[in-house]
Amino acid sequence: MTRPFADRHIGPDADALAHILGAIEVAGLAELAGRVVPAGILDPAGEDGLDVLPPAASEHEVLAELAALAHSNTVATSMIGLGYYDTLTPPVLVRSLLENPAWYTAYTPYQPEISQGRLEALLNFQTMVCDLTGMAVANASMLDEATAAAEAMTLLRRANRGNASHRLLIDTDLFPQTRTVLYTRAEPLGIEIVEADLSAGELPAGEFFGVLSQTPGASGRVADRTAMIAAAHERGALVAVGADLLAMTLIVPPGEQGADVCYGTTQRFGVPLGFGGPHAGYLAVHAKHARQLPGRLVGVSVDADGNTAYRLALQTREQHIRREKATSNICTAQVLLAVVAAMYASYHGADGLRAIARRVHGHAQWLAAGLGGAVVHESFFDTVLARVPGGAEAVVAKAKGRGINLRLVDADHVAIACDEATTDVHVVAVLDCFGAEIPVGPEGAVAHGHPGDPGSHRRPHVENRTSPFLTHPAFTRYHTETAMLRYLRRLSDKDIALDRSMIPLGSCTMKLNAAAEMEPITWPGFARLHPYAPVEDVPGLLRVIADLEGWLAAITGYDRVSLQPNAGSQGEYAGLLAIRRYHLDRGAAHRDTCLIPSSAHGTNAASAAMAGLRVEVVRCRDNGDVDLDDLRAKIADHADRLACIMITYPSTHGVYEHEIAELCALVHDAGGQVYVDGANLNALVGLARPGRFGGDVSHLNLHKTFCIPHGGGGPGVGPVAVREHLARYLPGDPLQAGSHAVSAAEYGSASILPITWAYIRMMGADGLRRATLTAIASANYLARRLDPYFPVLYTGENGMVAHECILDLRELTKRTGVTVDDVAKRLADYGFHAPTMSFPVAGTLMVEPTESEDLAELDAFADAMIAIKAEIDQVAAGVWPAGDNPLRGAPHTAQCLVGEWDHPYSRELAVYPQGVHHPRAKVWPPVRRIDGAYGDRNLVCSCPPIEAYAD
Amino acid sequence: MTRPFADRHIGPDADALAHILGAIEVAGLAELAGRVVPAGILDPAGEDGLDVLPPAASEHEVLAELAALAHSNTVATSMIGLGYYDTLTPPVLVRSLLENPAWYTAYTPYQPEISQGRLEALLNFQTMVCDLTGMAVANASMLDEATAAAEAMTLLRRANRGNASHRLLIDTDLFPQTRTVLYTRAEPLGIEIVEADLSAGELPAGEFFGVLSQTPGASGRVADRTAMIAAAHERGALVAVGADLLAMTLIVPPGEQGADVCYGTTQRFGVPLGFGGPHAGYLAVHAKHARQLPGRLVGVSVDADGNTAYRLALQTREQHIRREKATSNICTAQVLLAVVAAMYASYHGADGLRAIARRVHGHAQWLAAGLGGAVVHESFFDTVLARVPGGAEAVVAKAKGRGINLRLVDADHVAIACDEATTDVHVVAVLDCFGAEIPVGPEGAVAHGHPGDPGSHRRPHVENRTSPFLTHPAFTRYHTETAMLRYLRRLSDKDIALDRSMIPLGSCTMKLNAAAEMEPITWPGFARLHPYAPVEDVPGLLRVIADLEGWLAAITGYDRVSLQPNAGSQGEYAGLLAIRRYHLDRGAAHRDTCLIPSSAHGTNAASAAMAGLRVEVVRCRDNGDVDLDDLRAKIADHADRLACIMITYPSTHGVYEHEIAELCALVHDAGGQVYVDGANLNALVGLARPGRFGGDVSHLNLHKTFCIPHGGGGPGVGPVAVREHLARYLPGDPLQAGSHAVSAAEYGSASILPITWAYIRMMGADGLRRATLTAIASANYLARRLDPYFPVLYTGENGMVAHECILDLRELTKRTGVTVDDVAKRLADYGFHAPTMSFPVAGTLMVEPTESEDLAELDAFADAMIAIKAEIDQVAAGVWPAGDNPLRGAPHTAQCLVGEWDHPYSRELAVYPQGVHHPRAKVWPPVRRIDGAYGDRNLVCSCPPIEAYAD
Repeated sequence: MTRPFADRHIGPDADALAHILGAIEVAGLAELAGRVVPAGILDPAGEDGLDVLPPAASEHEVLAELAALAHSNTVATSMIGLGYYDTLTPPVLVRSLLENPAWYTAYTPYQPEISQGRLEALLNFQTMVCDLTGMAVANASMLDEATAAAEAMTLLRRANRGNASHRLLIDTDLFPQTRTVLYTRAEPLGIEIVEADLSAGELPAGEFFGVLSQTPGASGRVADRTAMIAAAHERGALVAVGADLLAMTLIVPPGEQGADVCYGTTQRFGVPLGFGGPHAGYLAVHAKHARQLPGRLVGVSVDADGNTAYRLALQTREQHIRREKATSNICTAQVLLAVVAAMYASYHGADGLRAIARRVHGHAQWLAAGLGGAVVHESFFDTVLARVPGGAEAVVAKAKGRGINLRLVDADHVAIACDEATTDVHVVAVLDCFGAEIPVGPEGAVAHGHPGDPGSHRRPHVENRTSPFLTHPAFTRYHTETAMLRYLRRLSDKDIALDRSMIPLGSCTMKLNAAAEMEPITWPGFARLHPYAPVEDVPGLLRVIADLEGWLAAITGYDRVSLQPNAGSQGEYAGLLAIRRYHLDRGAAHRDTCLIPSSAHGTNAASAAMAGLRVEVVRCRDNGDVDLDDLRAKIADHADRLACIMITYPSTHGVYEHEIAELCALVHDAGGQVYVDGANLNALVGLARPGRFGGDVSHLNLHKTFCIPHGGGGPGVGPVAVREHLARYLPGDPLQAGSHAVSAAEYGSASILPITWAYIRMMGADGLRRATLTAIASANYLARRLDPYFPVLYTGENGMVAHECILDLRELTKRTGVTVDDVAKRLADYGFHAPTMSFPVAGTLMVEPTESEDLAELDAFADAMIAIKAEIDQVAAGVWPAGDNPLRGAPHTAQCLVGEWDHPYSRELAVYPQGVHHPRAKVWPPVRRIDGAYGDRNLVCSCPPIEAYAD
Repeated sequence: MTRPFADRHIGPDADALAHILGAIEVAGLAELAGRVVPAGILDPAGEDGLDVLPPAASEHEVLAELAALAHSNTVATSMIGLGYYDTLTPPVLVRSLLENPAWYTAYTPYQPEISQGRLEALLNFQTMVCDLTGMAVANASMLDEATAAAEAMTLLRRANRGNASHRLLIDTDLFPQTRTVLYTRAEPLGIEIVEADLSAGELPAGEFFGVLSQTPGASGRVADRTAMIAAAHERGALVAVGADLLAMTLIVPPGEQGADVCYGTTQRFGVPLGFGGPHAGYLAVHAKHARQLPGRLVGVSVDADGNTAYRLALQTREQHIRREKATSNICTAQVLLAVVAAMYASYHGADGLRAIARRVHGHAQWLAAGLGGAVVHESFFDTVLARVPGGAEAVVAKAKGRGINLRLVDADHVAIACDEATTDVHVVAVLDCFGAEIPVGPEGAVAHGHPGDPGSHRRPHVENRTSPFLTHPAFTRYHTETAMLRYLRRLSDKDIALDRSMIPLGSCTMKLNAAAEMEPITWPGFARLHPYAPVEDVPGLLRVIADLEGWLAAITGYDRVSLQPNAGSQGEYAGLLAIRRYHLDRGAAHRDTCLIPSSAHGTNAASAAMAGLRVEVVRCRDNGDVDLDDLRAKIADHADRLACIMITYPSTHGVYEHEIAELCALVHDAGGQVYVDGANLNALVGLARPGRFGGDVSHLNLHKTFCIPHGGGGPGVGPVAVREHLARYLPGDPLQAGSHAVSAAEYGSASILPITWAYIRMMGADGLRRATLTAIASANYLARRLDPYFPVLYTGENGMVAHECILDLRELTKRTGVTVDDVAKRLADYGFHAPTMSFPVAGTLMVEPTESEDLAELDAFADAMIAIKAEIDQVAAGVWPAGDNPLRGAPHTAQCLVGEWDHPYSRELAVYPQGVHHPRAKVWPPVRRIDGAYGDRNLVCSCPPIEAYAD
């Protein structure tokens, strides 16, 4: 009540801030702003456009406001389907996973030694997907089903290089949003899409590199795909099939029918509808295409002691190896939601999932029995398509009156989707809306939870799967709540998340994810809304969305914001697509070149390539800034082809380049657009606005600057913000045929937007500004403290860094053999998560403290780094050999203490480098250094065999 | 959906159960029931009275039902006061503490080595209470303010033995509920209460052993107590003062005015109103009375390596040392709520608390300014008493219409209490209800959060405290959410709770506390209700209460249930008081003797003593059963004085005594009542009903049998159930003068009753019965597996135990020197919480697995125990000396691995006794064996000085 939220969010209090400012020789935050941000772009106080933000409110006020908004939404019974189904999240998963900071504040598992918990959970996810689809290898999640389909499309093309066709054949029975995203993604890549009804198993004439289909179809129809797949293979095409995982517990999966690729969503495995997201999509392939998989793939390897250990496999993924030649830019996954889905499968097990599927199918059968001749497709799983000539709207309206949302297909057709939450009462109500008789027979059984005795229906029963699935102990041991609770605890205890340590990751902005921000997202009023629910059902969430669009526009200085992109990579893609389409509309198709500084994130180039742009690299100067001379030369070289420049500001070098205004002007003068990557917006909020200092478009990362937790590697939200002239090119409604869309749902990961809404609402303009400046002050404080030990690579003209700093270890490495890897792993022994390694410069560490870390934690980190430097000095001095020292041996487990100890350093130094009495809590890495290459040579991406679990 | 909740709650699945039953040579659960429960008391199937229970519902159905019930309650603005104030629980405490299984599933910290986290939190609590009250020593919480006052009363009497008076002087301005509980507790102890207005500092004539007063008073008045205290001391009386902790941040505390004892509640420090509880009361004393403190006291000591460590101090507490001579029976504390209050103080710090207090006081001042001449007392903190001749009801009704509950004192007076949640809007609304002008002056300031400029009011400003408080780092380091989040995590990581291991505590029934049961208790519809809110505000919670009373009556076979007792000890006391009053009413005042078997829990005797009963001990036979011959003899000896017998069934020996029916009949025939302690009800639910097989009264432990979590040592709920003839003696409404009450709120810890409601609702009769039988089967399974290694001390006639078993180590100890302590501590090295030590038989371990543990965990525990037996054998064989072996050295910390190792056993054996590759997660005890005696000799019960925290 008394302390404003900003004081809870921002780590250093007034005394600590004074200490920090003293150390960096700045008199106050106002002076700091003037010192670090170029005068030309710094907004004068009171003219920063943030006056549209409401005044800061307390946590309890904001929770009350959000409760009222959630309450204004109508949580209807959703029978709309189309890839989104209500699901009953087991309460133990809500409490101990979705609402548990140990899970949701974790970072992407790039430091596998301190990420074994979620890596195991993701391996379970991959195993689950493989088992259910019948495929060999699955990745650790995609952003949603529609983008998974798009990734499947480009994967088919990559995997089928021998086939020169640029045509993709798609089934007419795909979900409409999948279709929209496919068309959006295909066009810039020169892929031509051909549509045909593939249910009969025959293909239209012509050459295709791939065929894409789904089962059950959007119409609910379940068709055997075997003949179609064989025909496609004969024709030289590869085949991807979208498959509903719950249906796959009953139906022969595409992997057993010869499909090359399987894609889909895992939403209905316990992940709330959330008005469209976030949910984990999936992508699985035949073994021969394993190395074509985009995204993240968890694999099994060994650690330095020969023990089984997990890590991200084939880390040289698509956008890293191929950059501008990439056809995927996926980076963030949906880890938190993938873990929910995997745990849902663990909790229910094969029998439990099958029982749920039978129940769902039984309800659909009962519906179909009641609808009789109105049923269009004889074979279905959960969705029944009914023909009601001229009466569809009336039926839908009648159901709406009863609190049930059905899908209006057209004037003559209604589709009804059953799901885990469907009850007998719903079925009876729906039949009544059709004026149908309630068939006798099943209801007694249904009422007792054993519906759908197939004998009592005239519909064919689709259950034909005979192969076993989910037989691994991961899916048989945790069926009671106690067992699941302990499993979740045990796994999360293996990981270092923000609830135990700062995570000083440059460019990733790991700040506080406050409980008050997180509470609302599991409220039914936000969580149980179908993305295609009628607008009148969702006024509260639409208000959150509209507010947020306005606030983010004000903060960034742009005119319009779209919240659709459900990851930063998607935001980039949407932004570049807008630029591309802008040029096309103005008859400037020749403007196809995107300039990117050499320091850029790999995703930038990949996104450009996906948007149909050629990438030209602009050099950087020795001081890290973009070389304006080279930029001028490149502009001259590509003058008429210049589409845009794509820069990050402050730069990925952690510096406010002082020539930013000139850089933008040069590009604009040449007819190009300026894309400002918002990855580093945490250094700008309240100080300078990209939309005002030269940007035409930016994407933001709500999971960086705006407090959406990283979830262990997703969800992310990557809104795209544009100036007015690009507004019409923002992503559209994916249900609208012909629109451009980058996600399956119009507002992407809508259910987590209240997090950012709450953050901005609680901070207010002053709080946001103070956060930015504190983040900058803290980064400079660390830079000052660490520079004598690890030289800070780049600083601005003023000798200061922005909100992060790059520590250069290259000289040290050359001299001692100690690498950034060694330092990163050694930090785990000190109880810290490592900074960003070797990005944007190989051989360096990039440190971003954020405003949320207090002085004690900043100093503890600096102390640890300085102690590590002293250890490196010992190596340099020859006290310890290069091959056997505490750095090379890091991280050290507790297990390694108990055997023989034949290192030249002591056990104590290994695990308590600051002494056993150091007050920092010891966090034990569960494994030692992991051998990534071994795992890549021996690729295993599903749960190890049971024996590995045996004592 | 598909698996009933019972399958989630009960650990062993069908296969596992078959294995268990096979091992104990029983064909099925039905046969098991017949084998273990005496035929005379076993309810035949279908005749167990449980048909009144509703059929089992799923987790999601029950959550929906409870949401509707919560929604039917009115969450009004509460300005009733009287010791209960709305408070804003910081969201980080809600999520990471109140809703965190690592905190709420922990047991009482009797194994201090694996309880350091909550012990530190409780030490903070004690320090907070001492600082704020100005006292030297505080205990680790009482059940509520009224019972704390009653404990203060008896403490004064104990501490003032030199004074022969049996009279206690109490202030007329005490809370009415405190008054009721004092009268209830005083009468059986022969204490005479005298009331007087003590505000002027003068005492009425006569001798008193003690004086009890409170500040602010029930009327809101703040009076200087210095003169009164001095006068009392002069008269030879000791003084206890009830003090509001928030007020104490501004007002000179009683400790600085010479008080001997301070008591009160910490509810308004972040603990939700919860319709009356649970909240942590407090009791603090002058240093000279430290050893008189009842309840639990955390103290500082050292471990085997000389490191600081915490544990319960002076463990030989009141009811243990004095048993039947005790004047306190307190056992359970309110640990979880005490931790919330302590963390609230840590999060706000001294400045934050003072600011909250000033804001509260400012609102009260503003109210008073507006009410002008109507204000009765010139000096107040948060509560303003207004005189409105004849108009009080109208004012209260008007406020009610505006959603504000005020306190109707009488026809002419209204009291208005301000609290942390009070806003300017509330003050204006209340003034308007009085038809008062809104005074100018403060509101501008109030609107900006700095209300109450004293200069603008005519009321005296009460702020006169000058002494510092909460200066310890525990209250200065955790003011940001990140820091608090990590502190909570760090502490909980030190403890073993149910989220990491089974806690096989005999007689404590540590079973699953399911997330679905726990979710509702933090919903505002249950959490934010004032206990004295109008009944029309709380229909939903009253429904839960009524259902629960009915269901518990059906399950126990009694006629009436009271949910008022907020701990098992209170339930016992209430039950014995009912018996005592029953005899008194029938003119049998001479019936004052309570028979208690020698195996009884110490609390039994203490409760009897408090109820004014003499205790006579009945011997047990060698087989553990009550010796019926001795019983006959005792009945004969005390025939006309026999009030009752107090037995536990199944017995504390873990056995269904077959003569139970005869035992009851003997007592009844002699005119006595039968009290059946419900501690072991988990072995009876659905099988036999104490109210049917001979009991006249029982108390239950909802925190044992009915899933309320132990909270690290509270809350507990101890309903009392009686047959019809005792119904009129059940606890009454504490606000009713002349009624008998054992807690400050009519329904005790009402806000956690939905936990039990949900449990029963989700299990249904069949689920409950299956749970009971599974618990019995699992106990017998462990008995079978362990008996060859540790003989099972007692079994029934059939050779079987009930739901727990006693392992006899006495012979082993005699032979090897290895004690139950050694085994208990060694279990921590194996990753397990120890069983109950030396209760009810010294030198034994009592093991209760409960139904929630699955076969894997049961076997893991048995394997660990068997491995420990092999270690003991090594000691016996002389392989290891008695003074230096893995048992005596246990528990082993990670720290002890890194130094010199000069033990005759290896490091690996010390910490990975089952090998480093054993799959069970290693839990590291944070300290080694604690020296309890050292701490008692050097009593330190508040946070150690800052230096102890330094590196």
